[in-house]
Amino acid sequence: MTINKNTNQIISEADLQALGKRAFQNLGLSEKDAQDLVHVLVMADLFGLSTHGLSRIESYGDRLKIGGINPQPNIQVERLAPAMIGVNGDNGVGPVVGMRTLEAAMEAASEFGIAVAFARGSNHFGPISPYSLIAAERGFASIIGSNATTTIAPWGGSDARLGNSPLGFGVPNPGGKPFLLDMAMSVVARAKIRNALKRGESIPNTWGTDASGNETTDPKVALDGFLLPIGGHKGYGLALMVDLFAGLLSNAGYLTHIKSWQDAPDEPQNLGHFFILIDTKRLGSSQWLSDRMTDFANILTDSPPADPSKPVIVPGMIELAKLERQRKEGIEMSSETLNLLRQYAGE
Amino acid sequence: MTINKNTNQIISEADLQALGKRAFQNLGLSEKDAQDLVHVLVMADLFGLSTHGLSRIESYGDRLKIGGINPQPNIQVERLAPAMIGVNGDNGVGPVVGMRTLEAAMEAASEFGIAVAFARGSNHFGPISPYSLIAAERGFASIIGSNATTTIAPWGGSDARLGNSPLGFGVPNPGGKPFLLDMAMSVVARAKIRNALKRGESIPNTWGTDASGNETTDPKVALDGFLLPIGGHKGYGLALMVDLFAGLLSNAGYLTHIKSWQDAPDEPQNLGHFFILIDTKRLGSSQWLSDRMTDFANILTDSPPADPSKPVIVPGMIELAKLERQRKEGIEMSSETLNLLRQYAGE
Repeated sequence: MTINKNTNQIISEADLQALGKRAFQNLGLSEKDAQDLVHVLVMADLFGLSTHGLSRIESYGDRLKIGGINPQPNIQVERLAPAMIGVNGDNGVGPVVGMRTLEAAMEAASEFGIAVAFARGSNHFGPISPYSLIAAERGFASIIGSNATTTIAPWGGSDARLGNSPLGFGVPNPGGKPFLLDMAMSVVARAKIRNALKRGESIPNTWGTDASGNETTDPKVALDGFLLPIGGHKGYGLALMVDLFAGLLSNAGYLTHIKSWQDAPDEPQNLGHFFILIDTKRLGSSQWLSDRMTDFANILTDSPPADPSKPVIVPGMIELAKLERQRKEGIEMSSETLNLLRQYAGE
Repeated sequence: MTINKNTNQIISEADLQALGKRAFQNLGLSEKDAQDLVHVLVMADLFGLSTHGLSRIESYGDRLKIGGINPQPNIQVERLAPAMIGVNGDNGVGPVVGMRTLEAAMEAASEFGIAVAFARGSNHFGPISPYSLIAAERGFASIIGSNATTTIAPWGGSDARLGNSPLGFGVPNPGGKPFLLDMAMSVVARAKIRNALKRGESIPNTWGTDASGNETTDPKVALDGFLLPIGGHKGYGLALMVDLFAGLLSNAGYLTHIKSWQDAPDEPQNLGHFFILIDTKRLGSSQWLSDRMTDFANILTDSPPADPSKPVIVPGMIELAKLERQRKEGIEMSSETLNLLRQYAGE
């Protein structure tokens, strides 16, 4: 596979944020909401998660224009119990709802040591790692999840009834890099199956099923079928649990009640998220945590690699290194995304 | 594989509890601690999780006798923040520490909507699903994890540096069966590899590695090597996150600091656990939750099965059906375990 470098451009973080902000303000968002939204999506681009970064201007923009997403949501934050918060996103853009929910959860966790915030009435909220990093930088360990449009069949079933729901964890490290894990429940993303098809290769029978739920090694057949979850019934169970916490308990939609942003872009999705935040400052000093986190990482990276060319890594390491580099050298963005942003920004 | 039914006996739940209690009291436990311990382990047997049930009398008993586990622990429960609890298990038997930690977490969650309890100074605490069920029956959704003796190599590494740490989720259903998920991070348990070896079969290359961390399809080689986590780097990341929450944040041991109960049975393991409890009664009425849980289960089980002989199931369904049946008809236990229990009970 060759990547045409000409279709990518380098842009500084500040310029990308300013451009993104103008674009979303022109799509009807308030200045603060546009800023929150761009904060999350630019962080995704910094991490190298371009499919979940500002490239989403395409679907977010389309839906904002036709009224599928509310550009001026009246987001309601309700205290359901001292350390439990319910957020009604009023069908706002996902990362705007996400940031408001995260902030409420952090505030309550500071007070009580732990807090949970459940969001409903939301939309695609970007990747999880930006939220985990924001939380970790302020000393919070986190467990965050969202449900998603249905793309996976129940284990042993034959039609799409649950989403490839992402689940993320973060643990701060006051003296170094936090640990961040942001994972969906499928063995691979659909893009990886599409790439196998392009190259004319077969795929392992653990990646996907045909349209009737039967294993397949044919990428074309798998693309017409369903993604398979990691560890079979284990990943199926995990995806369900994420939906139970993010969708069912939050009073949002769940499973097939979630509207597809592709099939019904003009309708509210009613996605749900949950944010569990733990204030690590209540557990011990910064030095205590930093010493333990450094020791933890060292134990892992000191394992001699099975393949000497591939040293052992820890979760978040690659993304955080990319963030650091792109903060200095600029962010690599596709020209297509930049052009669309400029178009919306009126440039 | 033939199972010799003669080696199993049926015993009622009440009789098994009484027998287990006498055995552990004779091993030095107080009446209350023996009762808590047996409560958890008999529930494991009711679920059909016999490897994590009263069969553990073997290792627990050995370690209690040689001073590896403290039969009379002075368990300290400390409030670190309003909704955050730290428990020092004082090297007590794992399920005793687990029950005390669960109770403290439920109490605080009733007050604040959510609470977390971190336990250190503990030992193997049985399976997670008994704790999740106890919590669910009282209206709490739960996320519970424990670390474990190291048996897994870091992803790409070549020696055992992390445990096959279990993670469990539970969501109550006031009108029916709760959803319970209790999973370790390996694709399969070692027993499944041993069974392949007995049958002279090869294994998929996703189950385990050789002693140098390289993929293998030879069960004998895999048994000398390491279990592989579900979804490769995803399961590796999940296992690490469970250890970070259960071990590192709880101030217990973690990774290679965990003592092996097999190699050093006379030393404290310093295992850690975490219990996050959410009071669903703060989210809505019993009727609201029950309606949604029933609908959620129906959406899944209504998916036409890919193989008509295998209807779609939901997490916990098999274990809860077994529990219901064995509560009525008696529990199937190995004669070996019953004999050992009777020996310790002085019968």
